[in-house]
Amino acid sequence: MKVVVDAMGGDNAPREIVKGAVAAVKQYGMQVILVGDEQEIRRELESCGGDKLKKIEVVHAEEKVEMDDSPSQILRTKRNSSIHQGLRLVKQGDGAAFFSAGNTGAVMACAKMILKTLPGIDRPAIAAVMPTVKGATVMCDVGANVDCKIENYVQFAIMASAYASLIMHKEKPSVGLMSVGEEDVKGNDITKNVFKFLSELGKSGVIDFYGNVEGKDVFKGTSDVIVVDGFAGNVALKVSESAGWYVSQMLKEELRSSLLTKIGAILLIPALKRIKKRADHSEYGGAPLLGVNGVCIIGHGSANETAVKYSVKMAHDLAVKHLNGLIAESIAESVKVLNVDKEDSFWNNIVEKFKRKTI
Amino acid sequence: MKVVVDAMGGDNAPREIVKGAVAAVKQYGMQVILVGDEQEIRRELESCGGDKLKKIEVVHAEEKVEMDDSPSQILRTKRNSSIHQGLRLVKQGDGAAFFSAGNTGAVMACAKMILKTLPGIDRPAIAAVMPTVKGATVMCDVGANVDCKIENYVQFAIMASAYASLIMHKEKPSVGLMSVGEEDVKGNDITKNVFKFLSELGKSGVIDFYGNVEGKDVFKGTSDVIVVDGFAGNVALKVSESAGWYVSQMLKEELRSSLLTKIGAILLIPALKRIKKRADHSEYGGAPLLGVNGVCIIGHGSANETAVKYSVKMAHDLAVKHLNGLIAESIAESVKVLNVDKEDSFWNNIVEKFKRKTI
Repeated sequence: MKVVVDAMGGDNAPREIVKGAVAAVKQYGMQVILVGDEQEIRRELESCGGDKLKKIEVVHAEEKVEMDDSPSQILRTKRNSSIHQGLRLVKQGDGAAFFSAGNTGAVMACAKMILKTLPGIDRPAIAAVMPTVKGATVMCDVGANVDCKIENYVQFAIMASAYASLIMHKEKPSVGLMSVGEEDVKGNDITKNVFKFLSELGKSGVIDFYGNVEGKDVFKGTSDVIVVDGFAGNVALKVSESAGWYVSQMLKEELRSSLLTKIGAILLIPALKRIKKRADHSEYGGAPLLGVNGVCIIGHGSANETAVKYSVKMAHDLAVKHLNGLIAESIAESVKVLNVDKEDSFWNNIVEKFKRKTI
Repeated sequence: MKVVVDAMGGDNAPREIVKGAVAAVKQYGMQVILVGDEQEIRRELESCGGDKLKKIEVVHAEEKVEMDDSPSQILRTKRNSSIHQGLRLVKQGDGAAFFSAGNTGAVMACAKMILKTLPGIDRPAIAAVMPTVKGATVMCDVGANVDCKIENYVQFAIMASAYASLIMHKEKPSVGLMSVGEEDVKGNDITKNVFKFLSELGKSGVIDFYGNVEGKDVFKGTSDVIVVDGFAGNVALKVSESAGWYVSQMLKEELRSSLLTKIGAILLIPALKRIKKRADHSEYGGAPLLGVNGVCIIGHGSANETAVKYSVKMAHDLAVKHLNGLIAESIAESVKVLNVDKEDSFWNNIVEKFKRKTI
């Protein structure tokens, strides 16, 4: 089972990508195909001692996608980019999973076009792992779909639940619906409707539906999964990252403010490092693009060797554990349990659509 | 100029509310009308030495609103509650501003019904002050409107800009639009349209439009104001508050983990206190409900004496500085500069509606 790695994607490509891939091969023993400018990749492999590893293959890609290229343009014009090439390898079955820290929009667009979506999935979604006081929570979607319909939320819930079950080792992770209050009646027009569908899936045991959660529940770890539209999810993710940055900025300033605080700070270095490590969730690797027919992991543009190593491991593990098989099963189960015989034309409409697309 | 205070609203009412009002009167010399159970209020006034102050009046209210009462029910059935009574005093001109730390939904509903909205405003919105590395930023809406139309966002921008100009002492605060990327083309269907209207207001100088901002810009203080729908705004606000709590939880645990860290922590107590103070924005008082015809400040349910004191001062200051006059002027200016003669029926439709409601 080979992981295909886009060696050219990300701010630190190809160096950190190649080093991360080599580290993954050395530490976990998996096979990797590096895709990109062959000459550059070979040079990096040599400089980090990866050129001797038989488990690493290199596939040349003519073109390179820049971080500010428009996704639709890349989709049409850069068919020989490392992203296209890498995804085609997965499509053909030469690789079991794909990882890229490159242009997120381009990876999403190309993955949807090349790998296609799983049966029953309209739109792929990005799931991010957030740190909580209890461990971690999976938030989905965090930016792939900024305008969502009811069926999209329902699919996010099913996909994220399958993903969380694998990474958290829980059979049925609890799934919360992001809202503005915890009571069942709280929410906007669409989340109130989504609530009914998720309740139905919850009653039937397809997912473990917790109910509504709020922004404050993210770090509390109230539910294992939080379902949210890609707009609010993206805002929540970026606010969270930025809040950590804000606190660390203040800490840095205040700890330098006097001799006593400087001494105190030195004594606290190990504790502060531990906090940084706890708040850092890079060990979960990149964020999977759930719902495409093939494992596809998107890394942060700033991904370094360690982040790449974990992401490659994650891509491999999700393929081994049949993430997509699990999602497909769960979708099929949902289709069975969602009734179309309710006296509610709105409900029936959504379910009909869901079933049509799935079968 | 009297500030009307709902003495019965909030988790710590009436004690902390009365103490806060007394502190505001003593420190800033304003006049206050306390509304609620007269006997209870008099008792609290006596116990904190407020019974001798001539600047404090008490108005009895028969009914009390509970935190979990449904807003629509309160609106109809509890017409003698301290919220109704207090807002009527403002409506009649006996008070210049209203403050309550009670049931937010009830205060919003009653304020809209009793005070009515300002000309040109469809729906009132809540503005929250967030701490940033540069000082503060005003986010609006943070929960009053979970389903927004284009004209609502435009009104939020105008109202929040007026509010920010008063509390930040800037003639034209910069106004950012919350989105999922900073480029002009980023956003969901509705924010992309809102972007065009805000750009037009920016070009005409009614507001200083910065462009799109992202979740990570909240703590950076990229813009003075952030315009957002009440759903994503509420999520952002609660995630922010919760992120601070999360970091402090980790700090507490880690600082207790060894003797060295305990010593370090003791040396850092003053620095940590300063950080807490910087991240705390209670000095800005509660959150104003912008757009109602009368100043109305909503406090946190957990508001203590200090928070109430600042909120009462804020309510007073916003009335003195004619917040609502400023909003009305700005709305009138917008109506003038937004053109209906564009070759875009969608645009014309929104502007027509906006103008009709305003005139």
